Amino acid sequence: MEELLYEGKAKRIYATDDERVVRVQYKDSATAYNGKKKAEIVGKGRLNNEITSLLFLKLREAGIQSHFIEKTSENEQLVKRVTIIPLEVVVRNFAAGSFSKRLGVEEGKKLSRPIVEFYLKDDSLGDPLITDDHVDVLDLATSEEVAELKAQALKINEVLGGFFAKIGVRLIDFKLEFGKGADGKILLADEISPDTCRLWDMETQQKLDKDVFRRDLGNLTDAYETILTRLGGQLHV
Amino acid sequence: MEELLYEGKAKRIYATDDERVVRVQYKDSATAYNGKKKAEIVGKGRLNNEITSLLFLKLREAGIQSHFIEKTSENEQLVKRVTIIPLEVVVRNFAAGSFSKRLGVEEGKKLSRPIVEFYLKDDSLGDPLITDDHVDVLDLATSEEVAELKAQALKINEVLGGFFAKIGVRLIDFKLEFGKGADGKILLADEISPDTCRLWDMETQQKLDKDVFRRDLGNLTDAYETILTRLGGQLHV
Repeated sequence: MEELLYEGKAKRIYATDDERVVRVQYKDSATAYNGKKKAEIVGKGRLNNEITSLLFLKLREAGIQSHFIEKTSENEQLVKRVTIIPLEVVVRNFAAGSFSKRLGVEEGKKLSRPIVEFYLKDDSLGDPLITDDHVDVLDLATSEEVAELKAQALKINEVLGGFFAKIGVRLIDFKLEFGKGADGKILLADEISPDTCRLWDMETQQKLDKDVFRRDLGNLTDAYETILTRLGGQLHV
Repeated sequence: MEELLYEGKAKRIYATDDERVVRVQYKDSATAYNGKKKAEIVGKGRLNNEITSLLFLKLREAGIQSHFIEKTSENEQLVKRVTIIPLEVVVRNFAAGSFSKRLGVEEGKKLSRPIVEFYLKDDSLGDPLITDDHVDVLDLATSEEVAELKAQALKINEVLGGFFAKIGVRLIDFKLEFGKGADGKILLADEISPDTCRLWDMETQQKLDKDVFRRDLGNLTDAYETILTRLGGQLHV
């Protein structure tokens, strides 16, 4: 059996024979509010694996590289091994979630321009929002890296927003993680799925993302299946 | 009687015969944790009025303008009327308080360089930390104003840090507020006192600021009196 390198809330990472490659296994666990709300939702792992694989492939076609190599089973994919930069990089197009709550802005209000936020990836601290100065004095990334993370995040926002608009879905906000490869280059990593994006139907405003679970709005797998189907994914690509 | 224009947690603002000038009256109220902890502390208003007056005068001598005109009584001063920019501008030289708690950094650790933070001045939201992008999309200040606020805050930090170093006190962090005059120019406003600064004795590390009240560390007026005395203030200038 391959060595389990890391187990997070939604994924397990295993070593492979190639030290430059790891296998990501998507779990059926759903968690929210820094793990305070939890559930097992059969099919969620498969759906996020499918959707993430599809989006990373589409991004690659659009010239945006990521750690993604290939999907190898219903709930697994191979990715390049990277060292994750301990920042959650959030892009927001519309006010929602913690942005609305912290700053008193109505959910769904369009921002005058997309913004990028950094959160310190540290569950014990509740992943706090941090400023560019914090990134610097906490020595989390250089100012050149910060500039690159922001530029990549905004580029990805443009491309992803385009994909979703074509299928009648508004990209409200999303979270990215980046890693550094052996060569020191910054590479998009982690996942892009309805777990990490807020996706609203453009006609009905229906939520097609993890807020369905966070806020008990109905069947999570139905929502994720809608996203996958509209993106043109088949369950066994 | 002059019209009361505004009553805050620590000060009252009155109109004067001159519409360009207001009278600030320092109260004896102490509050912390967004008003959750409160007390009346006789003498605090006088001490903060004296200390703020002294520091604004010293800053003026160092070429840094503020709204301050003159002290007119034990607990009152005249200042130029400005429209306060709804940002708390915090400068940090050492980790302490919310910085330490949110980011998991030991209190008293020197930062690799001074940093400036913005907090949205909104009690109902608990004065949340915001980023430069938030300042922009919430339309709180232009990017030129943000740059000027930061530059002024860092300049004030240098000068204030120098004053305090001379009297054996370490300037850990402090909060500033700025206003805009009728001419649209940004002007240092509000107060600079042990209510708004963290001040530690360099030898003993004793806290000589509002943390004495926040954390029940002893007699608040003794601590503030120490600062005033060391700054060379007399009680009736």
